[in-house]
Amino acid sequence: MIEIKHQKELKNIVGDENFHNDKAHLLAYCYDATKERYEPDCVIYPRNEIDVSKILKYCNDHQIPIIPRGAGSGFTGGALPVRGGVILAMEKYFNKILEIDEKNLIARVQPGVVNKHFQEAVEKIGLFYPPDPASQEYSTLGGNVSENAGGMRAAKYGITKDYVMALRAILPNGEIIRAGKKTIKDVAGYNIVGILTASEGSLAVITEITLKLIAKPKCKQTAMGIFPTIQSAMNAVYETMASGVTPVAMEFLDNLTICAVEEKFQKGLPTQAGAILITQVDGNISEDVQWQLKQIEEKFQKNGCEKFQIAQNNAEEENLWFARRNASQSIAIYGKKKLNEDITVPRSRLPELLQRISEVSKKYGFKIPCFGHTGDGNVHTNVMVVDNTDEEQLKKGYEAIEEIFKITIELEGTLSGEHGIGLSKAPFMSLAFSPSEMELFRTIKKAFDPHNILNPGKMGL
Amino acid sequence: MIEIKHQKELKNIVGDENFHNDKAHLLAYCYDATKERYEPDCVIYPRNEIDVSKILKYCNDHQIPIIPRGAGSGFTGGALPVRGGVILAMEKYFNKILEIDEKNLIARVQPGVVNKHFQEAVEKIGLFYPPDPASQEYSTLGGNVSENAGGMRAAKYGITKDYVMALRAILPNGEIIRAGKKTIKDVAGYNIVGILTASEGSLAVITEITLKLIAKPKCKQTAMGIFPTIQSAMNAVYETMASGVTPVAMEFLDNLTICAVEEKFQKGLPTQAGAILITQVDGNISEDVQWQLKQIEEKFQKNGCEKFQIAQNNAEEENLWFARRNASQSIAIYGKKKLNEDITVPRSRLPELLQRISEVSKKYGFKIPCFGHTGDGNVHTNVMVVDNTDEEQLKKGYEAIEEIFKITIELEGTLSGEHGIGLSKAPFMSLAFSPSEMELFRTIKKAFDPHNILNPGKMGL
Repeated sequence: MIEIKHQKELKNIVGDENFHNDKAHLLAYCYDATKERYEPDCVIYPRNEIDVSKILKYCNDHQIPIIPRGAGSGFTGGALPVRGGVILAMEKYFNKILEIDEKNLIARVQPGVVNKHFQEAVEKIGLFYPPDPASQEYSTLGGNVSENAGGMRAAKYGITKDYVMALRAILPNGEIIRAGKKTIKDVAGYNIVGILTASEGSLAVITEITLKLIAKPKCKQTAMGIFPTIQSAMNAVYETMASGVTPVAMEFLDNLTICAVEEKFQKGLPTQAGAILITQVDGNISEDVQWQLKQIEEKFQKNGCEKFQIAQNNAEEENLWFARRNASQSIAIYGKKKLNEDITVPRSRLPELLQRISEVSKKYGFKIPCFGHTGDGNVHTNVMVVDNTDEEQLKKGYEAIEEIFKITIELEGTLSGEHGIGLSKAPFMSLAFSPSEMELFRTIKKAFDPHNILNPGKMGL
Repeated sequence: MIEIKHQKELKNIVGDENFHNDKAHLLAYCYDATKERYEPDCVIYPRNEIDVSKILKYCNDHQIPIIPRGAGSGFTGGALPVRGGVILAMEKYFNKILEIDEKNLIARVQPGVVNKHFQEAVEKIGLFYPPDPASQEYSTLGGNVSENAGGMRAAKYGITKDYVMALRAILPNGEIIRAGKKTIKDVAGYNIVGILTASEGSLAVITEITLKLIAKPKCKQTAMGIFPTIQSAMNAVYETMASGVTPVAMEFLDNLTICAVEEKFQKGLPTQAGAILITQVDGNISEDVQWQLKQIEEKFQKNGCEKFQIAQNNAEEENLWFARRNASQSIAIYGKKKLNEDITVPRSRLPELLQRISEVSKKYGFKIPCFGHTGDGNVHTNVMVVDNTDEEQLKKGYEAIEEIFKITIELEGTLSGEHGIGLSKAPFMSLAFSPSEMELFRTIKKAFDPHNILNPGKMGL
């Protein structure tokens, strides 16, 4: 609980209208997509960098926790004030696209800009910002940078970190720093942009982001292949990518997911299939897109693809995507509570991962449908707990998750491909990192934030 | 000077044959491409990670400087033992390509592998590692990662950091850490890969590197355009890149450079031209390459290109590249000593940069020919000092350089696009970074290396 005198001082910085400690505000900022709840002591809307700087300095001097927040759409509790303190809500004033620079193909934005709004703004003038997390309709670019958000297009276009060229940020001591440049090449000083990206708001408060843009590809096309097994599907993926084709998307559904979508929607999906792959390619000219599709068709058929279909128009394209888009809601037929994780392995290990998950499924008696991105090995794995009021079942569900994490690490994978560690995955950090690696994280945290005021209690630090 | 007892202990770790303090070895490891000389106290060839760990721990306990070294081909003194100590020479034992993984399109290498050897190994099986610093024939991948090396292909394919997926490294306290994963997506823990890349050997000793590969493009073609002014050439570049074409290379020569090559080689170059652009595009199919060339031709001609030529065969291609490849040696006609820097600005500021450099040229009375990479704004700027024995002239030359750095920073540029800061650019760090930014660098350095044993005296820290 922040003392009243401190709350008063903080209010003085931003003015009455930007400081709130009424119940309605505390409730509005107490949750994120995990649905866990932790009330802050107050919610502050900083108007500008000077406000952020003063607030940080004050909180640093008085050791008050402070949690920067975008849209609160994170899946791992990154924006939750687990130790109370100040929510620094960036959406009210830090929501402007400051510049779209067509000569340098970059944009400068404030952290509260919504991903989708930004994408629309740049696409309007023929440019393209590839990172497309599933939350793009509401998540903010500041949140995307802090969590290093991924998305469907990662295999071809990379993830958020590949687009962050420069940042302005404010350290816990109130100092404003700039990091990075508007240039592709810049090797002066340590890579502060690199360390701030994905730091989950625990090292500094980002106040401005310079993002790389590319020209928008002019053509794209979607295709689908049905495979007898996951292994045959993955062999097709490996050969496709080694042939020079990097698909924008190469999504898979496993048999359980296919069956769930079919049961719910009766679309005539092949319920005997081991896997469906849905792929999209893009390029600047139709010949290039056709060439890519031809490679894909060849590699698919060589590896036992039973049916290969190219969408001939928008309606057919939508139809091919239908199963993927409805996967998440359809698998609800297997249980009331879904324990879903965004584990990621090198794509060569994906068949083994799925095989091992099916063993976990048998061992614990849960259905575990899986779908996701083959191109980058990122699997949405869903332990389906039939009865969410049964504490015993839930406990077993979490044990199954822990076992899946262990398998993932054993297969050279990572606890999180795109959601971050936050609160939810903090207990598993010691599976993935050695004591000296954890110690290094703590040392870095301390270097930036000696009093541990920024988003404390996260990442297992 | 390291005490004899310490030298003895270090020798015990690696064995007699891997420890040297004779004059021949000290001389062999006292220089780099800056031609400055600093003798170490001893040269050690570690055989494995355990050796590196023991050596670091010993040096840390006894506060002995230790300088990791690849090929010593750096341009800023990064590998120079300015405070004596131990040279940790990685080329003898850490020189193996450990794995080329075609399914995941990655490779694991030791830091002493030469860039070019690695490129050849992956190209042999149809894969491609784009970063191509001019030193690729001899520089090592460990050095490339430590300096975050660039190259000609950066505008399309990015620089070293865009290919480093994971590292093994050893901290000054001797702890072995792993950072990053073989996965495109990985957001667990702080981005240690990001901060170690470009850290100039000052935070940890890298012992293994996991690099991203791509499939090798199947076609490429080269073209050249002659422009009346730098501004017209750059307008053509901006429009080309916004049209969806990202050339592999888009190199420029300014008028002074053109005249120098012509004077030396009489190739019929246009000595009245303001700029020559030489460009290369690549792709998987010929139609795509042709489409790109057509865009380039259109944008070039729209912007006053006086002559546009596409190479029809290898000989013509070599001919188009001739002037660029011989630029560096040709400009020697302007002076005995070349003070060259790899400044970089956002590409929109390139015409203004070159205009301001021509004013510096008039003010100080030096010819300053410039050439380089328009795609990424990286300019090789060369202050030509006529008489290198004239101390007064040399002093003025360095003053001109400092003025060029100031202009570069003013135009949102960076002190170094690809060479790093090291020793040579350390005095200019305060032009580019605020006291709080420098303090942050020092804090990070201290977090990794509290006794300042790793490559001390570099980067202005």
